[in-house]
Amino acid sequence: MVTNVKFDEKGLIPAVVQDATSKEVLTVAYMNEESLAKTIETKETWFYSRSRQELWHKGATSGNIQKVVDIRFDCDQDALVVLVQPAGPACHTGSYSCFSNSLLGKETVTAEDRFAILSILEETIAK
Amino acid sequence: MVTNVKFDEKGLIPAVVQDATSKEVLTVAYMNEESLAKTIETKETWFYSRSRQELWHKGATSGNIQKVVDIRFDCDQDALVVLVQPAGPACHTGSYSCFSNSLLGKETVTAEDRFAILSILEETIAK
Repeated sequence: MVTNVKFDEKGLIPAVVQDATSKEVLTVAYMNEESLAKTIETKETWFYSRSRQELWHKGATSGNIQKVVDIRFDCDQDALVVLVQPAGPACHTGSYSCFSNSLLGKETVTAEDRFAILSILEETIAK
Repeated sequence: MVTNVKFDEKGLIPAVVQDATSKEVLTVAYMNEESLAKTIETKETWFYSRSRQELWHKGATSGNIQKVVDIRFDCDQDALVVLVQPAGPACHTGSYSCFSNSLLGKETVTAEDRFAILSILEETIAK
């Protein structure tokens, strides 16, 4: 059982996933008690998908797992910040972060090409 | 009217408040359409308090307003990251960030003393 945190009436708590190195916010997802317990146990992120209504191991299909460095909770104990080392893009669109659009029309410099350099390196080595 | 983002069945969207400079996550709060519009208009953070059921201008009483640098939305359009320049601690406990406790028992180095130096400087000058 996970103490210290409170789940809402649907049994969920919002989890802000943040890159432990770049400090960029990658995703906001939701955890239930089971997914939080699995995250703590495996040190990889597990969420609860509200649309599919099932547990979801980030990176299980894409390979883009997120290694957990720390999990912080706030003063109200009703939100989490999960600090991670991502193995690849966090977003299903292939972007480094899910937050790549600005409401104020500003350019977002969210290190979207953070992993692009690895592909280029890979290609160069393969030649 | 704010387009591009979706509010939940309670008319709310979670807003992750992040220090634009240090990149620390300060708070997770909620906005309704009116508070988001006021945030965009005034370039200071306004939230909707779920407990008090009213709009809430961060810093109105404490003076610790948060100047808005950018507002980003995610690929699902159902979460916001608000990048701010905080005038003081974000947390009602006086901490720099609301996320100053670790579920994994790690020490949190969330620059809690970020503003303490200003108080010391103030005292020194006053002498």
